[in-house]
Amino acid sequence: MENYQLKAIGVLHTPYSQRFGTPRQGHLVPAALGYIEFYRQLQPEEMLAGLAGFSHIWLISLFHENLAQKFPPKVHPPRLGGTSVGVLASRSPHRPNPIGLTLAKIEKVEPPRLWVSGLDLIDGTPILDVKPYVTESDQVDAKTVREGWVKENPWVETQVLFTPEFQQEFAACFARAPLSISSEQTLTLLEQTLRHDPRAVSDRQFTLASRGQRPYWLRLYNYDFGFSITENCVQVLTVRLALEAPETKSLEN
Amino acid sequence: MENYQLKAIGVLHTPYSQRFGTPRQGHLVPAALGYIEFYRQLQPEEMLAGLAGFSHIWLISLFHENLAQKFPPKVHPPRLGGTSVGVLASRSPHRPNPIGLTLAKIEKVEPPRLWVSGLDLIDGTPILDVKPYVTESDQVDAKTVREGWVKENPWVETQVLFTPEFQQEFAACFARAPLSISSEQTLTLLEQTLRHDPRAVSDRQFTLASRGQRPYWLRLYNYDFGFSITENCVQVLTVRLALEAPETKSLEN
Repeated sequence: MENYQLKAIGVLHTPYSQRFGTPRQGHLVPAALGYIEFYRQLQPEEMLAGLAGFSHIWLISLFHENLAQKFPPKVHPPRLGGTSVGVLASRSPHRPNPIGLTLAKIEKVEPPRLWVSGLDLIDGTPILDVKPYVTESDQVDAKTVREGWVKENPWVETQVLFTPEFQQEFAACFARAPLSISSEQTLTLLEQTLRHDPRAVSDRQFTLASRGQRPYWLRLYNYDFGFSITENCVQVLTVRLALEAPETKSLEN
Repeated sequence: MENYQLKAIGVLHTPYSQRFGTPRQGHLVPAALGYIEFYRQLQPEEMLAGLAGFSHIWLISLFHENLAQKFPPKVHPPRLGGTSVGVLASRSPHRPNPIGLTLAKIEKVEPPRLWVSGLDLIDGTPILDVKPYVTESDQVDAKTVREGWVKENPWVETQVLFTPEFQQEFAACFARAPLSISSEQTLTLLEQTLRHDPRAVSDRQFTLASRGQRPYWLRLYNYDFGFSITENCVQVLTVRLALEAPETKSLEN
């Protein structure tokens, strides 16, 4: 098994600074906006010439927080609720090489930055490569495609409700520490992020009562959103500013 | 720019042992059959469980022959005939990280081997990752996709003719040194491989006459096929067995 040295060509900045709540797939969260900051010594202005003519790209990334982990040959995909499949028959981030493949929408080409949306990656993810999406080589005909366990187990969406108390708190919070996106866009992102249960399968037995009324916390940018979750409904209960989130600051300007 | 160490998880075996003639895209050569041989210590039997339910996979590979090369920030895609685009707006194998992304068709899951077709990679290519193709996350709606210079410059197919002399030679050659695929399949692969001019843009000025009647040579498995090429037509003229092609032997058994 030979080793190869690869360099990051840039770093991805996203609303997600923690693994908990980072979406399982990019298409689930079209509102998740971010940018790649390419290293200037690679001449991003030249490298990106012509990319604005394309609507979508492949992001080949490194799940850098999983680099040191031992990978399991079988994994338990969230939507299979306990059943295992081979890691290479899944899109799990815990892989023999922790490499990610995300289809993202191009929002703006602004070297050395490339703005993209539909992100399922954590803030600070190293980017190994970017390739334009090309239908002729990247699309399988619907008549011939077979998609195993994925097709048999579609994602289940949960209703996301914002309590009146939360809505008041959020308005005050946003006025004090606004983001570069609007408060409406922030709530859309929150809703898209929470409508698929972010918890590991093994944690789904817990209720707000069994947790002693402690909510779960999802961090987006430098906001911590507190929520409860039942089988049919997520309720966002409260919000507070995260005290320490220096790595997300870059998105607030 | 941080460095990361990645291991190959297996090695891909294909009909192409030389860079010249290796297809530009996998979808151009559905007959290009090969297999990944996964390293046994990674437990391929477990890792591949459930993959047989899928029709297609993403191969994330390493263009290992380009590892030591300095990459150009702009490239000249073959079908643009001279015009350059940014390397990240292209699928060129000469990239800042020489990582390939190929959509391949699953033919047979037979651990530690995975048979696939539609290959645009050289024999011996290290495989970094394999992921199932999933329509919901990997497909862009035809109504919203934009594909820049690719859409404006479709591939041009050249007619491929087999001369009677070649056909006789090939029948004799195949009887003497058969492959695991049939002679008809071999000719289909040859035709698919040659119908897109394999030459670099800078070599397209040459004719058989200007080359002193020397044909071009394409190696498939351990056969060398001699051909001439004009603007409208490829003629396959002759075939001979390659004397040295130890790296392709594994496909002949």
